[in-house]
Formats: sequence, structure tokens, C-alpha cells
Amino acid sequence: MTHSYAIGIDIGGTNTDMGLVREDGTIIARSNIPTNAYTELVPYVHDIIGCISKLMKDNNVDKIDGIGIGAPNGNFYTGCVDNAPNLTIKGVLNFEEEMHKYMDVPVVLSNDANAAAYGEMVYGGAKGMNHFIMFTLGTGVGSGIVVDGKLVHGSTGGAGELGHNILIPEGRQCSCGRKGCLETYTSARGIVQTFCELRAANGPRDVKEGWIPDTVKDSDVTSKMIGDAANAGDPIAIATYEKTGYLLGIAIANSVTFSAPEAIFLMGGPTKVGEPLLKPLRESFEKHLLNIYEGSCNIRMSQLKANEVAILGAAALIKMKQ
Amino acid sequence: MTHSYAIGIDIGGTNTDMGLVREDGTIIARSNIPTNAYTELVPYVHDIIGCISKLMKDNNVDKIDGIGIGAPNGNFYTGCVDNAPNLTIKGVLNFEEEMHKYMDVPVVLSNDANAAAYGEMVYGGAKGMNHFIMFTLGTGVGSGIVVDGKLVHGSTGGAGELGHNILIPEGRQCSCGRKGCLETYTSARGIVQTFCELRAANGPRDVKEGWIPDTVKDSDVTSKMIGDAANAGDPIAIATYEKTGYLLGIAIANSVTFSAPEAIFLMGGPTKVGEPLLKPLRESFEKHLLNIYEGSCNIRMSQLKANEVAILGAAALIKMKQ
Repeated sequence: MTHSYAIGIDIGGTNTDMGLVREDGTIIARSNIPTNAYTELVPYVHDIIGCISKLMKDNNVDKIDGIGIGAPNGNFYTGCVDNAPNLTIKGVLNFEEEMHKYMDVPVVLSNDANAAAYGEMVYGGAKGMNHFIMFTLGTGVGSGIVVDGKLVHGSTGGAGELGHNILIPEGRQCSCGRKGCLETYTSARGIVQTFCELRAANGPRDVKEGWIPDTVKDSDVTSKMIGDAANAGDPIAIATYEKTGYLLGIAIANSVTFSAPEAIFLMGGPTKVGEPLLKPLRESFEKHLLNIYEGSCNIRMSQLKANEVAILGAAALIKMKQ
Repeated sequence: MTHSYAIGIDIGGTNTDMGLVREDGTIIARSNIPTNAYTELVPYVHDIIGCISKLMKDNNVDKIDGIGIGAPNGNFYTGCVDNAPNLTIKGVLNFEEEMHKYMDVPVVLSNDANAAAYGEMVYGGAKGMNHFIMFTLGTGVGSGIVVDGKLVHGSTGGAGELGHNILIPEGRQCSCGRKGCLETYTSARGIVQTFCELRAANGPRDVKEGWIPDTVKDSDVTSKMIGDAANAGDPIAIATYEKTGYLLGIAIANSVTFSAPEAIFLMGGPTKVGEPLLKPLRESFEKHLLNIYEGSCNIRMSQLKANEVAILGAAALIKMKQ
């Protein structure tokens, strides 16, 4: 049997992860280089191409369908990464053009959250769905929106930034310069801030095993710690997720009024806590969902593995040019 | 020269307006029947068909490309009107099937705001645009969203209800049963409520010519009166539009994070006031727009005439099946 293959590349500020992906969503082999060792596009792409060639040769693959790249500020329309603040290679980087100097295959870029959404559609829990939205919770909150079976890129390529929907007018300061964005409340950082605020309002307390002691400074609290504490019964950690779930539920219900999706998918570290987040989230979602959508949309967890989603999502992007 | 024609039908709770529309967006002739004189679909459609036949005969048109219908709860996918609360004909009404008993042409339904958006694209200011959003301000707030040159209907047909985006969590009571929806602040009713709240907080006052005197009861205030008063310098009316524009600007900036549209179009009675609304709206929009969209999207007024948009929008819908 003959298989078809694609390359998925996940460009992060620190590392660039590459994978050779079979059409059934199996990552056959991986490779990586340190992104932050480069300050110029030409040697960076040269070395990426070296890795791709080696991945193909080592696995007796002589042909690939294309190269998909998930990158911060990756632009689907231009094939460029546009001034990504967290990359050491500065400026507008034309990956498509640079890669075409070596390989005559489709090169498709999009941002990480869009790639994750597309990966879910091609390889994960959104197979066969024409309308869904992916929310990625991490340091920030990203999103990828699929309408009529296609990723929404919008007029600029920058569509799907629901983490920067203003949920609370004049609310928390966001790193984008504005106030009250969804991600200031439901990103890992936002969850930590909520915990610290609730803890301060509560005053000193005695803690049981597994709770977060008062001796842990605000700056040392992580969302992982809050998740573990919530599952150990820490009432302040539980209250933190109740607020987080409540607010995320409103934001997700709001997103449904846009595209009436079949499902909302969630992924990312802060979702791993499970029921302490998911129970108030579902309750808030049901309470805040406009009645005409009742029963037509539900919240699901990504079906892709955390350590595979970035490469699979990137590889999936090339399906948009097939 | 041979022209092509379509029929546009605007179904309202009181009247059903029909128009014979030439492909250049000229309404050649109109007709109407009272919607609320009917309690059954069969005689209602029978009489609509009678009007259509007469419109065609009177104007020597022997062939139409299709019939487009803008209706509350009009469903693009099913060709039905689904339990519209403001119609005297109750239940799920299969217009497409019933009309096909008489005429073998495409019959396309959608809701009023979607039709308005599509009309703007086919005949108005959004010609040639692939990504835009229409907000219709009236008794409520509706929206129609165009992505990649197509109306977004979503998985159910009910996409594009941005008037029911929750803008202020736990805010004003909405007729949908939830709280804080955009339309509770920026519909005609919402604007009246804001005026009455600001007036009550202000206390008794002396008014100048054109202002709204205290003798006008809350229940008699209309958004048209507030608009006229604002243009006559009434400070409470002006403050009303400042709040309205501020909130609508946030909502519109939020909508941009979804689909990165080229433009946002506005239409409807409350927008007619002009600068008292538009100035604070633009300022709020610019302040609340995520920086990556700066310069790529602006706010525009619908280019269709208020008394033509419903029929033109409905007629435009058939382009989706051509």
C-alpha cells in the first residue's frame, strides 16, 4: 500500500519542531532545531530543509504532499510570518518563497491556534464537522474557527483572535494594550491572577494537604498548582475555576452566536484540571447560550495528544491547498 | 437587451412586501398583502403567488431566476420559517415546498439581517467584498456575516445573532431571557432605556428648544425623539448616544476578532441620528480594536435605501443558489 505524507512544522520562540506525518495522522518521525539560534531567515530555512530531507531519507519517503507551518503571526494568504514578537528572526519572513527555492511542494502557513483547529478537523475529534471553534488555553488564549469546512482567515489572514474579545469592558489590563480581554481571565496567567486576588481577599488561612499554602508567593503560583489544589479540595482554587469557567462559558456562548458551530473544542494546559473547570464551564455555557442554539452545540475536549497537536495541525494545513 | 429578474419578499408580522427586482438592483414594481390576515400557510402562499404572477404579467416578465424571502427565523438550509413568534401563522412553515407547487424556481429563505447583508453585497456598498459584517439596529439588533463571499449560516442556519452577544455579564434584562445582550443597550429600546436612566439620574431640568422636556413620560420617549434632541444639543440625549456608541464600538471591535472583515456596515433607524452616535462609535471602535486589525477595517453606513433594503436583500438571496 502506498501512503501519502506531509511535513508539519511548529515554530515556537525557543524550538522548531518538525514531523513527518502519514495521511492517517501518524507522526512517523520527528526532528527539531533551536529557533532562537537564528537571526536570519535564509540559514534558518536552509537548516529546516536539511531536517526535512533527512526525515524523508531516513524513512524512505521520496515524495511529500506539502509543508504546513504553524507559527506565531503566520499568514495563510501571504505565506509569511509577520513580525512575530517572540522570534529572534525579525521582520516579515517569506517562508513560502524561501522554501520554494529548495522544494517544489505547497507551503502553507497559519497561526498555531488555526493549525490546532485544522488538525482537529483532519485528524481529531472534529472529523466530518463543517462548523466548529477551537479555543486553545495556554499563556494566552487562541482560537481557530471553521465555517463551511474551511478555516476562517478573514480579509487580512488574522481572523480568529477570540482570546482578545473584550469580555469585561474596562476590565483587567491585557498584554495587547487594551482592557478586559478574554485571555486576561482564562489564560494560565489569568487563572493565576484570579487565584491571587481571591486569596488576598480571603486573608490568612490554614491549609490541608494538597492546598496551596500562604507561604507560596503570588509570583510562584502556577495554573498547574491551582489545578492540583482544586482537585485536592482547596476552596480558593475551586473558586478560581468557578470564576474562570463562568467567564469562559459566557465567551463560548457568545462565539456560538457568530457561526452556530456544532461543537466547541478546548485544548491546552489550563483545561487539564478537568471537572473543577469543566463543571462551572458547562453550567455557564448552558445558562448563557441563546435558546435557539440549545441542543445544537456542545463543549468537547481536543482528541489530539498534547505533544502531537502542533505538528499534526501544521501538517493538516496543506489539505487546504489540495 | 434582455434583463434577468428575481422576486424579493420581506415577511413582517404585519405586512408582506414583495418586489420584482431587476439584476441591477432596480425594484421594478411592488405589491403587498397583510401577513396577519392569515393563520395558515397554504392560503398565504397561494395569495403571494397570485401577487408574484400579477407583478410579472403587469411588467411583461415571463421568467424569474428565483424567489428570495427574508423572514423572522427564516432558515436557509430547510427553506422553512421556524416558529416565528411574531407571525400569526404558527409552527414550522415550509415555504420552499409550498411555493414549488406553483413555480419551479429556486426559493431561498434567510432571516432579515442576513438578507440585508447579502443585499449590501449584491447591490450596495459591499460589492466585491469577501469579508464583512452587517449590524441592523432596530427594535432589536440583528447581524449578517459574510465570510469568503458567502453568508455564514452555521450548522443550524441560525448563525449571525450578534445582537445576542453578551456584552455586559449580568447586565440589562433581554427579551431572550438572558442578561446583558448587545441589543439591550444598542437597539431602539435600549437607547430609550439609557436616555430614561440618564434623565432620572440627572433630576429635573430646564430644557431648550428641541430638547426632550421632562413632561414627556418614559413610556412615550422614542429613539427618534432622542436623535432629534441630540442634534438640537440636548445634553442627556447626547450622553445617551455617547454611551450607546461606546458600547456598540466594543461589540463591533469584538466582531472583528472573529472574521477580520474589510468593513462593518450599519443600518436601521437608530443609526440615522448621524454624528451624535457615529462619533463616539468610531472613537470607541478605534480604541477597542485589536492592534493587528488597525487600518484593515472601518465602519460604514449601508448604501441601500431604507425602504428598499428588505426587498433587495431578499431578492439577492437567490444568488446563493445560482
